[in-house]
Amino acid sequence: MNQRLEGKCVLLTQAEDYMGPATSKLFREEGAEVVCDSTDLTEPGACESVVQNAGRIDILIANLASQNYSGIHAVDLPDDAWANTFDVMVHPLHRLCRAILPQMIERQAGKIVVYGSATALRGLKTVTAYSAARAAQVGYVQSLGVEVAANNIQVNLIAQNYVENPVYYPEKLRQRESFQASLKRQVPLGRLAKAEEDAQFALFLASQESDFFVGQAIPFSGGWIQR
Amino acid sequence: MNQRLEGKCVLLTQAEDYMGPATSKLFREEGAEVVCDSTDLTEPGACESVVQNAGRIDILIANLASQNYSGIHAVDLPDDAWANTFDVMVHPLHRLCRAILPQMIERQAGKIVVYGSATALRGLKTVTAYSAARAAQVGYVQSLGVEVAANNIQVNLIAQNYVENPVYYPEKLRQRESFQASLKRQVPLGRLAKAEEDAQFALFLASQESDFFVGQAIPFSGGWIQR
Amino acid sequence: MNQRLEGKCVLLTQAEDYMGPATSKLFREEGAEVVCDSTDLTEPGACESVVQNAGRIDILIANLASQNYSGIHAVDLPDDAWANTFDVMVHPLHRLCRAILPQMIERQAGKIVVYGSATALRGLKTVTAYSAARAAQVGYVQSLGVEVAANNIQVNLIAQNYVENPVYYPEKLRQRESFQASLKRQVPLGRLAKAEEDAQFALFLASQESDFFVGQAIPFSGGWIQR
Amino acid sequence: MNQRLEGKCVLLTQAEDYMGPATSKLFREEGAEVVCDSTDLTEPGACESVVQNAGRIDILIANLASQNYSGIHAVDLPDDAWANTFDVMVHPLHRLCRAILPQMIERQAGKIVVYGSATALRGLKTVTAYSAARAAQVGYVQSLGVEVAANNIQVNLIAQNYVENPVYYPEKLRQRESFQASLKRQVPLGRLAKAEEDAQFALFLASQESDFFVGQAIPFSGGWIQR
Repeated sequence: MNQRLEGKCVLLTQAEDYMGPATSKLFREEGAEVVCDSTDLTEPGACESVVQNAGRIDILIANLASQNYSGIHAVDLPDDAWANTFDVMVHPLHRLCRAILPQMIERQAGKIVVYGSATALRGLKTVTAYSAARAAQVGYVQSLGVEVAANNIQVNLIAQNYVENPVYYPEKLRQRESFQASLKRQVPLGRLAKAEEDAQFALFLASQESDFFVGQAIPFSGGWIQR
Repeated sequence: MNQRLEGKCVLLTQAEDYMGPATSKLFREEGAEVVCDSTDLTEPGACESVVQNAGRIDILIANLASQNYSGIHAVDLPDDAWANTFDVMVHPLHRLCRAILPQMIERQAGKIVVYGSATALRGLKTVTAYSAARAAQVGYVQSLGVEVAANNIQVNLIAQNYVENPVYYPEKLRQRESFQASLKRQVPLGRLAKAEEDAQFALFLASQESDFFVGQAIPFSGGWIQR
Repeated sequence: MNQRLEGKCVLLTQAEDYMGPATSKLFREEGAEVVCDSTDLTEPGACESVVQNAGRIDILIANLASQNYSGIHAVDLPDDAWANTFDVMVHPLHRLCRAILPQMIERQAGKIVVYGSATALRGLKTVTAYSAARAAQVGYVQSLGVEVAANNIQVNLIAQNYVENPVYYPEKLRQRESFQASLKRQVPLGRLAKAEEDAQFALFLASQESDFFVGQAIPFSGGWIQR
Repeated sequence: MNQRLEGKCVLLTQAEDYMGPATSKLFREEGAEVVCDSTDLTEPGACESVVQNAGRIDILIANLASQNYSGIHAVDLPDDAWANTFDVMVHPLHRLCRAILPQMIERQAGKIVVYGSATALRGLKTVTAYSAARAAQVGYVQSLGVEVAANNIQVNLIAQNYVENPVYYPEKLRQRESFQASLKRQVPLGRLAKAEEDAQFALFLASQESDFFVGQAIPFSGGWIQR
């Protein structure tokens, strides 16, 4: 079997949530040593100590996901929900990158892959905070990607939607006929992606196959959005 | 003379900075009554009281600009600079909209125009915080725009770059030959826009001519970015 | 009344179709002298002689629309339908611009506005030929826009969808309840634009208010697409 | 060694040009049976007979490249050069897809990967015909992708720029210091991609790893364009 991540050290955040489990499984199968972190990264100093404890990090998988507060209109969206999306998904992204980049710059090699959201690229009702925070990730990745490209560090983001996961698409929701009908209407492919398919794309972006990708936010959404 | 904003009440934030002066001048010439606010919107309750004091608001011009911290690499960018971009440009945007939307929804009419940045759409070195915060504005506008469109409220953003203003392009910088040469290389049009030209676009988006524009981030950058 | 096109000479193609009537009406109200052309621009030499006969042209409104062959799957789309979309919408665009640009370059001023389509920017079933041809217009406008910007000539495109016109949205279709329901579902704004609203945007792009817009394809679609 | 295309039948067009050689080499190493076609696809019936002769086709690699006529301004670009870009890159794309889709629809599986160009997504001087034709490919892929997604056929495009190949970047050009300096300025990564890296991305899009990608044009340009 091909070991596309042989000898690579990976730091995976929020490892038990969102895309964490599928990622750690696949990346280990591909030969990586994966540090699975589950600490609360909103705490002061948390990002810095996670990075310090991890030691060598060739690849950062920034898997940061808050509640999406879907269903709450902007007029009703309270400050704490708003702040939470940024506290969980945006601010730690910068702190993690800031802490990891020095070693990557020293080695003149590194990969940062962000599990982001296609809601950053296409408007959707009643997810204003989530969309704003996810878009902040995209803006950060674009500029950081350009900034560190000359150091042979690739920073890219998966702009995903309609990927199976128990938080955004609980089993109960998926079994509803109305949900299946809406899937057919909204998603040209007509189905959710499995988490494993998403992890395969993260693998591509984490491997040396993606060396020419710089600061990109690439849709992964079954055609819900294309660019 | 045509009065494209006759009878309209406008709230303009940070009215003395960035695009404020050009906007208030043009909008008044076009017949609007403009409330020019200059309070510090990062203070708790500030957004809400500005809106309350303004009374009727047909049009919000969200003119929110922080320092861009240009020249500081991500590895060196401290938490307070990072936080400042969001505190000044992102969080008040939500609070202002949240406070204003109820009256707009009641009237089934309203315009929200954000003076944003093209750095949200194209990566640039050493402006990661600024890019991330500006991108958050774009994500917010996209989703809020879709959310309130059915109420006949149009929310749009000007994704600008290379517009004259004393903070980002001080006189001294503009007079340097190297800056003029870089302008020719970076900007297909080969010059900065005048603030008045930018205000003309805001006028278009604030007037009823833009009723069919929903949640858009439209580049205004002399060709630096096109989409 | 403000005359935003006072003294301007405009060439408008396919003047009796698509956006032609609304455009000539508005542009004349705004003070322009409008040459309304209705010749078949697919004929050899037709573009060149239309331009020659028009004399001075400050503004070209490239209003080029073929059938959209909506409903025909790619597997069934014959060569003649395919060719027709390019013959009507793409090749004349280049020939018109090529013929007009010399006088604009000489004057170091000019505006070219293309009534294009949002189907160039977002995939849609059973309109492959139309989408491809409309996308060719976008690609042309982007590159030509950058090429001639330094001559102070602005080339831009309206990427429209859901605009009232008798060909794509015949009265009979518009009256169907199922069409109205689909509008609500597909278009965040929930309605078609009037042709007059579209012409207002063309006016903006044709006037000096758009001097800083270079090679852009700007969505005009009630939120169907945002970028 | 992992065989990511084991048992797959691939049709590769213009197999001796552009991305052809690198693609056939890699795809065969990955276990595919590759039909390398080099016939002139502008001839009537050529696309249809190539497809017929190939028999089973699981994957189409549409490698279609004309001259780019770089350096010729739009005002000087003759009809034959214009037509050539469409004759070579656009019309055969539709004819190939139209001929291949029936067998893919029957099997409810298939991959179409187009080697396209980032000049479809970002304007560049003196390549108007090329940009227009490349954009037509993007428009086609977007709409066809959405149209056939429900048949489990994935159609995607690589929007590339700055990839090594002897036609667009002849050895002599690459050795010039001015070219190397321009690379550093234009491309954040600061180098050309090797053709092999590009083929790796085509491999990803041709393999089952890309099942959730629908009608996308994905930049591959070292950061020259990001979306």
